[in-house]
Order: sequence, then C-alpha cells, then structure tokens
Amino acid sequence: MTPPSYTDSGWQRAAADAPFLVAARGDEPSRRPAWIMRQAGRYLPEYRELRSTMSFLELCNTPDAACEVTLQPLRRYDLDAAILFTDLLVPVVPMGFGLEYNPGPVLQRTVETEADVDALKIPDPETDLAPMLATARKVRAALPADKAVLGFVGAPFTMACYLIEGSGSKYWSKTRRMMHGEPERFERLLARIGDCLAPLARALVNNGCDGIQVFDSWASVLDQESYERFAAPASERLLEATKESGAVAINYVNGAYQHVGAMQRSCADVLAVDWRHDLGGFRDRVGTERALQGNLDPTALFCRSDDLAQRVRRICSGAGRSGHIFNLGHGVLPQTDPDSLHVALEAARTET
Amino acid sequence: MTPPSYTDSGWQRAAADAPFLVAARGDEPSRRPAWIMRQAGRYLPEYRELRSTMSFLELCNTPDAACEVTLQPLRRYDLDAAILFTDLLVPVVPMGFGLEYNPGPVLQRTVETEADVDALKIPDPETDLAPMLATARKVRAALPADKAVLGFVGAPFTMACYLIEGSGSKYWSKTRRMMHGEPERFERLLARIGDCLAPLARALVNNGCDGIQVFDSWASVLDQESYERFAAPASERLLEATKESGAVAINYVNGAYQHVGAMQRSCADVLAVDWRHDLGGFRDRVGTERALQGNLDPTALFCRSDDLAQRVRRICSGAGRSGHIFNLGHGVLPQTDPDSLHVALEAARTET
Repeated sequence: MTPPSYTDSGWQRAAADAPFLVAARGDEPSRRPAWIMRQAGRYLPEYRELRSTMSFLELCNTPDAACEVTLQPLRRYDLDAAILFTDLLVPVVPMGFGLEYNPGPVLQRTVETEADVDALKIPDPETDLAPMLATARKVRAALPADKAVLGFVGAPFTMACYLIEGSGSKYWSKTRRMMHGEPERFERLLARIGDCLAPLARALVNNGCDGIQVFDSWASVLDQESYERFAAPASERLLEATKESGAVAINYVNGAYQHVGAMQRSCADVLAVDWRHDLGGFRDRVGTERALQGNLDPTALFCRSDDLAQRVRRICSGAGRSGHIFNLGHGVLPQTDPDSLHVALEAARTET
Repeated sequence: MTPPSYTDSGWQRAAADAPFLVAARGDEPSRRPAWIMRQAGRYLPEYRELRSTMSFLELCNTPDAACEVTLQPLRRYDLDAAILFTDLLVPVVPMGFGLEYNPGPVLQRTVETEADVDALKIPDPETDLAPMLATARKVRAALPADKAVLGFVGAPFTMACYLIEGSGSKYWSKTRRMMHGEPERFERLLARIGDCLAPLARALVNNGCDGIQVFDSWASVLDQESYERFAAPASERLLEATKESGAVAINYVNGAYQHVGAMQRSCADVLAVDWRHDLGGFRDRVGTERALQGNLDPTALFCRSDDLAQRVRRICSGAGRSGHIFNLGHGVLPQTDPDSLHVALEAARTET
C-alpha cells in the first residue's frame, strides 16, 4: 500500500461499513476486524531504522515521521485500523512535567501536595499538542475509507500513577497510598487529569480519529471498590467526551478480570481486556450486543504456529462473529517475530 | 514478651487449640488469628537497627539474628504466628545461582537451555540450608504453644520467573515466552524446581514449622489456562509435601481473582489471596469449610484510622468467624506507620 499524497484539508472519516466501525457497533462486519496494540514499534525493522535517526519524543512530535511509523504496520499486515504513534505521557509535557525516556518514562517532578494538583496546566491541544493532531490528519488522509484511525489517551488513574511516582512501578504503592490516605486529593487529581485530557480526546476526533482508546494500563493494582470509586468515573469522562464527539470509545482495562462488573456499566462502545481474561467467558457475561476487543497474550506470539493459530481461533470463537475486534491483550513485545502476526491474523480471519 | 532461652532440642509444636491452627482447619478459634506478610521488616525501627549491622543475605543466614528479627513483630503486636525471616530466593544459592540484593534480587546467571534446567542442583536442606532450619528450631523454641511458626517456599512458577529473568520484572515476558514457545522445557523446569523445594518444605516442618506458605507472587501475569496447566500442579506438589509432613499448607496466590477456580481444587488447607479480591465474595464461592487468609490492601494501612478499621471489619465479616486468618493481601510496605497495624489488628479482633 502506497499512501496517497497528503493535503492538510484532504481527509475524510472511515466509511460506516468499515469492518472496525461495524464491529464496534456490535454488528457483524464483512470480515473480523483486527489491529494490534503497539503495532507500530520496535519489533518491526522498518521502525527501528527510522527510530535510529531521532529520539522517541522527537519521533512522536514530528508529524511526517510519526505518520510514517503509524502506517508501517498497515503496509506489512492486512489490518483494519491504524493507531497514532505517540505515547500516553506526551501530554504531560504541556501539563507542566519535564519528560525523558530512559528507556522507560521519567518525569522531572511529581505530584504530592494540593498545590501540585492545582498547578497542573490544562493543555490547549490545538497549540500544545499540535504535532499529534497534525499526525492524526496525515494518517487519516493517507488511508482508505475501510480503515479506521485510532487515537488514544491515558486513563486518569494510569496517568495519576505516573504523575505521582515519576516513573514505572510494579505495584504503584505511592499512588495507592495517596488514594487511601488522601482520597479527596486523589479524586481532585483524577478530575484535573480529566480536565487536561478530555479536550485532547475531542481534538483527536476533530482531527481525523474514528475512535479513541482510553488506556487504563494499571487498574490491575486496584481492588474492585477502589476501581469503582476512583478509576472508573474518571475514565468514563474521557469515554463520554469521545462519544459526544462522534467517535468510537474503547475502554481498555489491563487487569480487567476483577473489574468486569464496573466495565459493563461503562458507556464505552468497545470493552477491551488484557490476555488474562477468557474472552468467551467475558462474552457470556456481557451478552452479544456489546463489542469486545482482544485479547491474545502477546507472549503467545512465541508459540509454535499451530498452537498460536489454535489460541487465536479459540478467542475468536469465544467472542463470536459479531461485535469482536481481534487484538492482543497488551502491546506486542519488541522481541516478537514479525511473521507470527501473519499467523495470528490469518487465524483470526478464518475463524467463522 | 521475652523469649525463653533456646536449646536446640528444646522445641515443641504449637498446640492443637492455637488459634492459627484451629482456623486453618476451618473451625472457630477462641479469637480470630492474625499474622502479617513481611511482618518482620523495614517498617520496624528495631529491624532497621539490626539490619544496619549486616547485609540482607547475612541476616537470613545467621540463625540468632534471623530468629531475633522473626520475633520482633511478636513483641510489638499480639500476633498468632511468626514467619521465618528469610527470602524466597535464598534456596537458589545452593541450586547453583549466585545471588545479590541491589536492593531487589539479582541472579548471576539465568536458565535458558535444556542444559540449564538439567544443571539445577537439588539442595540437601540439612546441609545446604542449615541456617534456615536452625532459625526455625530457634523460633519454635522461643514461642509459646499458642503461637504458630510458619516457613515458606516460592511457588515453582514464581521461582521460574526469577531463574529465567535474573531479576524483577513487571510482566515476566521472558518467562511467558519460554512457557508458550518451549512448553515442555518450561514444565521440566517447574518440575525440577519442585524437586529442589519439596525437601525444603519437609525439612522446615521437621525443624519446627507448624505451617508452610507457598508464595505464588507472580501468578497474576498468567491466564487461567496457563495457570492450570503449568503453575497450579507445580505448586500442588509443594502443598502436598507440606501436608504429608503434618503441617498446615497455605496456598498464597497474588492475582488470585482469575485463578480462584483452580485454587478451590488445591489440596491446601488455607487459600490466601491478594488484596484485589473481595474476601466476602471469595467466601461465597468456596463455602464455609475451607480456611481463607487475608486480605487487607497494604496501602490501606495509610488510611485514616476509622477508614482502616472499617475496611478490616468488612474483610473479617465477609470471611466469617470460622476458618479465617486475618492478614494483608501482600507484604507490609517499608513506609508503613507501625501503629497502623495496631489499629488493623484491634479491628480484626473486635469484629465478631
């Protein structure tokens, strides 16, 4: 696929019968749609080549390069959606936090006090995150109408984890300590993060995204009560903003198993879960009307081909023919053999 | 409490009516028993003082010091069990792996090939882990018969994570890659780890432990099918060895929510779960005959006292008066205010 030349005003949305959009409505598409979390990334040699010429943040903030990286997996695989190449934490820079990748994210300061919460700046996406919006327009213009373009934002709980701890953590104990010890402050922080990201979700839609995935990467550390009190309502606001803008809202929760009840009450069009949840069991719980997305274990791409194909078919058959978007349950790993994705996609498409 | 002087032959087991043992049988004890995962550790100033005089591994391997540290929390709190001060990874040294703490564990080599699996040495606990056994005898001799002494071993899956990756990880992707890509090798590794640890579980019982907790700290990264195929049978072997030796077998699974079905089929006397599972819901599933242990969120110790007490009471009331051992759902954090444990224990004891 050679992308057509790009003109900044020359994009149009995906068609209503694009397989991704049909499945997102819960209907039966012409074929089972598929995309892969972190499909643009280090497992692809063509990505590594481009990445070797600039830093990760430069790549995110250079629309031509970010667009090229976004399109790379769609040239190699027969996917139904492109997801913008960027990072959950890119918006923290205009929120007032210096950011480096080393290789994981490191914030130059963290949120502790009330004053820190109040000091969070609310970015204006059109100016402060202009490169991300330009990338969205470029990608949308480059793709035919049967492909969807997806943007994403971090769920407020997951963003709070990074803002409080400053870098990655296994259990996010400092975050949970604030949540339990200063629950009002924590709620205000989540609300403030929502103030920062809801305009971005809307702007991404207005600049070409057909859907927005809200990534709650760290809800896995929460008990049900805390998820329902703190994390779910904060995510809901971003999902609502997406829907009000006319795009598909995808609620991705990593560690979803204990939060399925709360997810069912979400307004999201699509419920997306990590690899640990049996998707057939999830389908039994949510019924046939809600779209589901997922959920192959990324490390299952290291299985022998016949085992891999069997696992994919089991997921697809459990999810059903209508309202299922095939994906991994978490991002593809850098060590993945790119050919294994052909095996997985072929199996997803041939399962009826 | 001043421990009586110790003579190496002078220990006897906990009495059959010790609250811990009564609850472990599923019966109603004279009071709700409680112990706290990582109750001996950095949150206690008396621990930090002793620890400042020697390295962590030295402390584990010096019976007088390890016994003292094991007893510290029982002097400060009215607990029903002591758990030996040691680490899951101490046995990897006689298994042939150099080990440092920096501050997390770092192994000097890792397991990759078939030959690496075959090369795992099976320790003789009486010689290779003699300090741990001496600590067990000392602790047992120092405590009255209404207190239980617990030892622990790592679940083979969790041990495999460390042996394959060499240090901590969020998702243990390398481990899961071997599991999916080389399932027979992975099963042989788990079996070999079981060969290494079953004799240790038996030796700990023979040297004074009234119960053994099998710690599956990382089952949280597994889908149900993988847990049932790989992790559960390997843990089962250690639980069986414990029971055959006449001690209480505790099956602790972190990330238990998706594995509750498999846990119910375990031979363990006590099922112990992390903080993310609602213990009342767990009780509804397993019925009243099985003992449960847990499961306060360690970060809930940072709650205001009334909130903390309320959370503890809800856990205890959900678990019921019989067959419940109060504990955290994961280890106590170093930053914890020692006084918060008094609040939690008081609430656990007054909930009827």
